[in-house]
Amino acid sequence: MLPLQLQAESHIPLYVQLCDQLRALVHAGELRVGDRIPASRELAQHLGVHRTTVANAYAELESEGLIEGHVGRGTFIRANSRSLQIAPPPPSLVPGGAIRWESLFADDRGDDALDRLIRTMPASGISFVVAHPPEELLPVAEMRNCCNTVLHREGARILQLGATDGYPPLRKALLELLRGEGLQAREEHLLITDGCQQSLDLICKAFLRPGDAVILENPTYPGAIAVLAAARARCLGVPVRTETGPGATPGLDLEALEQTLAANRVKLMFLMPDFHNPTGLSMTLAARRKLLEIASRHQVPIIEDHIYARLVARGDRLASLKQLDRTNLVVQIDSFSKMAFPGLRVGWVVAPPNVIERLRVVKQSTDLHTDQLSQAAMAEFTRRGLLVRHVERVRKLCAARLAAVEDALVRHMPSETRWTHPNGGMSIWVELPPGFDANELLVRARECGVVFAPGRYFYVQSPQPNTLRLGFSGLAERQIARGVATLGDILRSELSKRQRGARRFEPSRVALV
Amino acid sequence: MLPLQLQAESHIPLYVQLCDQLRALVHAGELRVGDRIPASRELAQHLGVHRTTVANAYAELESEGLIEGHVGRGTFIRANSRSLQIAPPPPSLVPGGAIRWESLFADDRGDDALDRLIRTMPASGISFVVAHPPEELLPVAEMRNCCNTVLHREGARILQLGATDGYPPLRKALLELLRGEGLQAREEHLLITDGCQQSLDLICKAFLRPGDAVILENPTYPGAIAVLAAARARCLGVPVRTETGPGATPGLDLEALEQTLAANRVKLMFLMPDFHNPTGLSMTLAARRKLLEIASRHQVPIIEDHIYARLVARGDRLASLKQLDRTNLVVQIDSFSKMAFPGLRVGWVVAPPNVIERLRVVKQSTDLHTDQLSQAAMAEFTRRGLLVRHVERVRKLCAARLAAVEDALVRHMPSETRWTHPNGGMSIWVELPPGFDANELLVRARECGVVFAPGRYFYVQSPQPNTLRLGFSGLAERQIARGVATLGDILRSELSKRQRGARRFEPSRVALV
Repeated sequence: MLPLQLQAESHIPLYVQLCDQLRALVHAGELRVGDRIPASRELAQHLGVHRTTVANAYAELESEGLIEGHVGRGTFIRANSRSLQIAPPPPSLVPGGAIRWESLFADDRGDDALDRLIRTMPASGISFVVAHPPEELLPVAEMRNCCNTVLHREGARILQLGATDGYPPLRKALLELLRGEGLQAREEHLLITDGCQQSLDLICKAFLRPGDAVILENPTYPGAIAVLAAARARCLGVPVRTETGPGATPGLDLEALEQTLAANRVKLMFLMPDFHNPTGLSMTLAARRKLLEIASRHQVPIIEDHIYARLVARGDRLASLKQLDRTNLVVQIDSFSKMAFPGLRVGWVVAPPNVIERLRVVKQSTDLHTDQLSQAAMAEFTRRGLLVRHVERVRKLCAARLAAVEDALVRHMPSETRWTHPNGGMSIWVELPPGFDANELLVRARECGVVFAPGRYFYVQSPQPNTLRLGFSGLAERQIARGVATLGDILRSELSKRQRGARRFEPSRVALV
Repeated sequence: MLPLQLQAESHIPLYVQLCDQLRALVHAGELRVGDRIPASRELAQHLGVHRTTVANAYAELESEGLIEGHVGRGTFIRANSRSLQIAPPPPSLVPGGAIRWESLFADDRGDDALDRLIRTMPASGISFVVAHPPEELLPVAEMRNCCNTVLHREGARILQLGATDGYPPLRKALLELLRGEGLQAREEHLLITDGCQQSLDLICKAFLRPGDAVILENPTYPGAIAVLAAARARCLGVPVRTETGPGATPGLDLEALEQTLAANRVKLMFLMPDFHNPTGLSMTLAARRKLLEIASRHQVPIIEDHIYARLVARGDRLASLKQLDRTNLVVQIDSFSKMAFPGLRVGWVVAPPNVIERLRVVKQSTDLHTDQLSQAAMAEFTRRGLLVRHVERVRKLCAARLAAVEDALVRHMPSETRWTHPNGGMSIWVELPPGFDANELLVRARECGVVFAPGRYFYVQSPQPNTLRLGFSGLAERQIARGVATLGDILRSELSKRQRGARRFEPSRVALV
């Protein structure tokens, strides 16, 4: 067996360690072109790690071009490996026995393993991974026109240093938009940010000290877990119920929330009442009122993520927590990225004036202010009424795609599979039959050109390995049908194998490619 | 005397407390239109605070339109006060006896008092406060053309979600630019950020835990102090020598640096070897080599702020620390904002690959990625060779303005005034005759339509109240001459008063407006 040694206690993920060591063996000449490497199951057993670890490492090395699988024969070191192009850095940047940077890092942040696993999908593949607006609706020409106009009219002002609280014309346009939607916000309630991720970062900086407890839905948006972990907050997950049927109410478990609040000194809650990411579920109006009553009684502020709220597929748009808030405890974060242009980093916070003032001071030392070209272009796009029209188009297309994904799930999934029933948003949550692991399904599906986000990346605690998220908004209806059919085929073939006696879900091929 | 009570131990600055209480007295009807309020000296004595505190509060209230000064008569509550327009916020956002947000904030961040003091300057005034590129050179039309081109050519890619490490065409253009300047950086050494302020924030997050010691020049860039204070770092200032003459070498005191390193476990140093903000001084090549040797011996990384380095007015551009670094311990931060467009928030970090990888992960949870419209436009602007041409124009104009400010200082300043002799950059550092306070000068100068940044805002410790920074890059030569002449007039009139027996620098008018 190969001379490999993994350190479970290291902050470097096991699969990254494995990649690094295999790569080193190739570079050292201990593994040569054409050499066969062990099957993932075999190597996992030998190293005492989970098979997914080895599968992830092999997927990574394959994407680097270092290894290659041949059906029925195994996995081999590849000829003309692209990774041999990795040359040592030039002298001025080479470590000269100098600083061990790793020893200086403030924490043991992990890498984004999911990102590595899906980064190398071919363009012809079907990706359910991201939840972003449909590419074909991006109003590029209109945006170009807006850019042109604002640079012509107010170019020097845009290109010069700006105010931390935002570009005035955008502030004005946004307040009008919000008032049109029924939120009575004023100048002193608004801060422009670089998007919801930055809003979360600013909120963490303004409120949290290491060890402070924060309540999150479980599962939740991974970017929230990441920024809270970086702030060294204690993350407490409150279950989101996905069961339907008699006696079960889907959505945030308010009883569990009460218990968590009673048992901990909680500083903040971060919640998504509308089309919750990843499950797609929304809170009813009654649940929102109850939630506000609980928060007020416990005196714990709510950070309301409002980013998906405009993407209603069925039924009415419900009042936001901020709109229902009578005790001034909601901080709402929102952005253009889901409804319009993810590449333009512009978002905002609506909150009580003293919170806005504090966030403004925090933002000043974080990045001075948000990019003004995008702010100005967005202001013009909003002012001309193009935003409202565009959101309506995105909303309709997402609704059609939600219907398509539900239809495909009904048609193709084996009967033991369950899923949520969102009334809008950009994603749906699937629970595979018990005993299935979404990471293993991903490895198989990737071979067939279909990828998705395994559920484990969304959990604060107690990850359910049989869950996954399908982001459907970026895919055409026929892609959705084909992608879901592929997943269904893999699952049904596994189920029938199981029924023939196999005990666990296992890919049939020796080599993982 | 008025019923005022200030709390020295509060995190709210004293002058803000004073503003708030005076405003409250007006709203409560205890002070009415036409009422005379005490002279600042009198009120300061009564409250036991420094006179500048009262001066700042009065300046703030005047800018709000609540008070008004009449030469020789005093300061009065003003008729038709604009501040009476402040109405209570609408019901949905009113505190309902709910959360006391202030009690939830993570720290006692102060407000940016300087910002308040200078925010209300009339457009006809002369502001030496900011150091930014000359407004008249902003290449608005060229930028508009670049925007148009990139949105036409690659619009959908720009508007869709992007990569955390930056927009690929910009990465390519930047690496070429850097290599052209003699820095052998490669893909894995580069991260695109929202500018130097964000680069500092990411570095703080990646490296610092509360209590970690960081070395800064004293004085230094206030944005660095702010972000380090927010990270709860322990800031250690090492003096920058401003003396000239026999035996004195201007610039960072390397002996003091060695002592500070020997006496503390230092995690990082943040330094500006080129046209240091605020003094404008640069390190010699010999001093840079010595600094690197010291840092290497103590194994302490250097964060090199390279933002002003291209703005050479006299002599040669010197090799950066990053270029001289043989032991891989320099992280260089840089941006387009000083040389081109402050309003577009695009900067970058050049560092060893493992540092870049960590900063990338940190950036992902901070704001996902930098705005892509500005990145794409910048890439095009750089690729077309417009950036190099533009920087050359900015450099020449800044050089002419530096000469103008030096000339004006020689002509107008009283003989006891000293200043630094920068070879480039955007600011110059002035030391008033002993006993003068730059904050008091600011209050007087503001009345004459001239503002600048008092030196105290730049100090990590031991602030010298007689210092100030003149940012000259944004002013035409005749404005520079007029502004410096005004400062000289005020100082000389004060000096002659002193010589006639007055003991301290004191404005001659009773009311401060």
